[in-house]
Amino acid sequence: MKNTDTTTFIGSRSELRELVRTQLQLLLEQKNYEGVKTLLVPVQPVDIAEAIEDLPKTLQVIAFRLLKKSEAIDVYEYLEPTVQQSLIEEFHDQEAIAIVNDMSPDDRARLFDELPPKLVRRLIAQIAPEEREVTSLLLGYQADTAGRLMTPEYIALKEHLTATQAQEKLRTLAYKSEVNYYIYVTDSTKHLIGILSLKDLIIAEPEQTLGEIMTQDVIYTDTNTDQEEVARLIQRYDLLALPIVDKDENLLGVITVDDVIDILQEEATEDIYKMGAVESQGDNYFQVGLFEVAKKRFPWLLLLLVTNSITVILLSQYEAVLDEVVALAFFTPLLIGAGGNVGAQSSTVVIRGISTEALRDKKPISIIIRELMSGGLLGMILGSLVIIGIFLFLGHQEVGLTVGMSLLAITMIAATTGATLPYVFNYFGLDPALMSAPFITTIVDILGIFIYLNLAKLFLGL
Amino acid sequence: MKNTDTTTFIGSRSELRELVRTQLQLLLEQKNYEGVKTLLVPVQPVDIAEAIEDLPKTLQVIAFRLLKKSEAIDVYEYLEPTVQQSLIEEFHDQEAIAIVNDMSPDDRARLFDELPPKLVRRLIAQIAPEEREVTSLLLGYQADTAGRLMTPEYIALKEHLTATQAQEKLRTLAYKSEVNYYIYVTDSTKHLIGILSLKDLIIAEPEQTLGEIMTQDVIYTDTNTDQEEVARLIQRYDLLALPIVDKDENLLGVITVDDVIDILQEEATEDIYKMGAVESQGDNYFQVGLFEVAKKRFPWLLLLLVTNSITVILLSQYEAVLDEVVALAFFTPLLIGAGGNVGAQSSTVVIRGISTEALRDKKPISIIIRELMSGGLLGMILGSLVIIGIFLFLGHQEVGLTVGMSLLAITMIAATTGATLPYVFNYFGLDPALMSAPFITTIVDILGIFIYLNLAKLFLGL
Repeated sequence: MKNTDTTTFIGSRSELRELVRTQLQLLLEQKNYEGVKTLLVPVQPVDIAEAIEDLPKTLQVIAFRLLKKSEAIDVYEYLEPTVQQSLIEEFHDQEAIAIVNDMSPDDRARLFDELPPKLVRRLIAQIAPEEREVTSLLLGYQADTAGRLMTPEYIALKEHLTATQAQEKLRTLAYKSEVNYYIYVTDSTKHLIGILSLKDLIIAEPEQTLGEIMTQDVIYTDTNTDQEEVARLIQRYDLLALPIVDKDENLLGVITVDDVIDILQEEATEDIYKMGAVESQGDNYFQVGLFEVAKKRFPWLLLLLVTNSITVILLSQYEAVLDEVVALAFFTPLLIGAGGNVGAQSSTVVIRGISTEALRDKKPISIIIRELMSGGLLGMILGSLVIIGIFLFLGHQEVGLTVGMSLLAITMIAATTGATLPYVFNYFGLDPALMSAPFITTIVDILGIFIYLNLAKLFLGL
Repeated sequence: MKNTDTTTFIGSRSELRELVRTQLQLLLEQKNYEGVKTLLVPVQPVDIAEAIEDLPKTLQVIAFRLLKKSEAIDVYEYLEPTVQQSLIEEFHDQEAIAIVNDMSPDDRARLFDELPPKLVRRLIAQIAPEEREVTSLLLGYQADTAGRLMTPEYIALKEHLTATQAQEKLRTLAYKSEVNYYIYVTDSTKHLIGILSLKDLIIAEPEQTLGEIMTQDVIYTDTNTDQEEVARLIQRYDLLALPIVDKDENLLGVITVDDVIDILQEEATEDIYKMGAVESQGDNYFQVGLFEVAKKRFPWLLLLLVTNSITVILLSQYEAVLDEVVALAFFTPLLIGAGGNVGAQSSTVVIRGISTEALRDKKPISIIIRELMSGGLLGMILGSLVIIGIFLFLGHQEVGLTVGMSLLAITMIAATTGATLPYVFNYFGLDPALMSAPFITTIVDILGIFIYLNLAKLFLGL
């Protein structure tokens, strides 16, 4: 940074990450522990955590023990839960307690969720009493709610303090607070009554009280709010932190924007996985074993296989028709494929629209009609192309007409089903991203084949 | 907020949003403008913007003119680009200039991107010279780069200032800064040499200089960095803002975390759309017209139709086989469907893994082998079920064996192709989310049908 002759920092930072990843293991294997310490000096905690994750298990503990104590906590908080767990099980009790005691309460609660209950009981019995109390409080809330995610390490001051007094107070408080840009103002019963930023404090007149400086219109929510809703509030109102209150509106904690980014990323991954028919519980897909992976995918494949079997039964009912004009069988994959694609397009935009609330103020019926119309428009163009194509290449006029008309019917059904089902599932409290694909496929396949073979009977006079 | 007998604020805030949406139009139509002003007093700018977007065009201008000047800018910045554009075209020049002049430079640059060039020239000629200069600077960078996204409204101070002097300086500067939690320290040539937070400043001793308080290890990047990389840096290092420098490492602007949340959300939507075969350019799908929608979806449908036609040709090559045992035709949709599903599962996890960098330190070959093995495992289970099912329900032993073995082969091909192609596209700089689906489908369909009908010939002795 001081030497501006080097390449830009971003380049050198990612080079540094690469260097750490390749050199750390080598130095550890050579037992060159001074070398390790030197290597890690300019490295950010998140990058150290990543390098440690890449090491063989036996070296992970050694690497971790070489960290400075102040840095060790930060690094530990960035590690994947599985690595956190295996490390804590390797540590002596005293080491483990020292780390757990200094972790921020929200990270500690998340760790305790993952550890064996026996170990948690042993650790919790030995951490400082005030930390124990805070942890029990957080663990009392359901996973994925605001209560579980919040950190109790915020700054709250009383409204009668002057700007100068508040600054003095901050000097004694701020070092142990995680949230450093907002000051929350509470009354004597811990009711949240206002908010100000550190900037507001600095630019205020020295004798102004916090009550005069603060904004009373605070955006906050309660401990039971779902994490997705928390993320949306922070995103919508461009907040850096959201205060969390109990049912009496007493301030209990805050959730910070960096946690929210991770939540949004996780939720998007979950949605994407579900739309690809892969189960997800927020854990890292690439960290779990082969059988676990197969288990996450099997239920959906089985369901889809069963629903696909309906097409087999349906087709077998038309054995006579297919026997008569075997060319009809050539087009079932094409028709089903096109229906699946149009259905996927319509459901994708509606599912994503529901999930990001982009559709909040649109009427479902108008969206469904729009999809139906665009499905019809697309079906007419594609259907015409198919009729022309079959006539030109195969010379089958009636088969062409049958396939083309079926394609139009199928795209319209697919677009309508694709737009409707996500709303239906959402209405019944089911997850649209998870439920839509198999049901849309099934409906489109069955109706599609039914229409196709009946049109065939009609046009071909079978 | 002051009356704690009401329901929790989150409830009343969304009720308030609902109330505004239903009442605003009514009051405007009754020309009850005082009522409008009263209604909007407790409402956040982002919620006012949303309510205005819902109004008929003629009322949007009226509603906007009723806002207090200070609030009008905030509301305007939250409006959808299309509404921003139609409002600015409705305004008198003086009104338009007043708004454009007071917007933050990054939002102004984004607006100018959307407006007709003629109007932009007229507006830019009339805004304050320093604003014009800043805007031209931002407009000089490519869309979706750090240079275009950054705001030049940050706080930069010199290192020799003491904490007390810095606080005095802030009182005169902070009101016009968008970034209020970090102070950047620059030398006489505007080189970025350090960073401190407002908290660091408050808890410092009054006589300490910024040079002593600051951290020299600043994470920053340059103006050409892609917005996705900016988002990743902010996410990875839990930053509230990222400083942006030119090629001489002079500080030019900062990008804030709230912009990054929107970028991540947009990128996730784009990825999801692409995987659902819908084109996306970051604009709101539900705001564009029907023909525009069809246009966004047609190219992919056409491509998929053409590739699906290959299955038609392939099947027609086996007309004799199908004619002999027409029951074989019943299973093509099932086989193709299962292959498509397994391929989608594998490609989904790999595409998302590449996009979130979760796969950065994994070797592609090990991921592909893992997918191949899990595909094989799943194929064996599903294939066995199919063999048993066909034997029990249809009594066809050879057909069952043909379908079951084909299913195993197809799931293995699908899993391998699904895992491999995203890497291949990524390697060649093509977008995996966009390219994978049609190619995987095509490969799996063609190989699948080929294997299926040849196995049929073998097992059925045709």
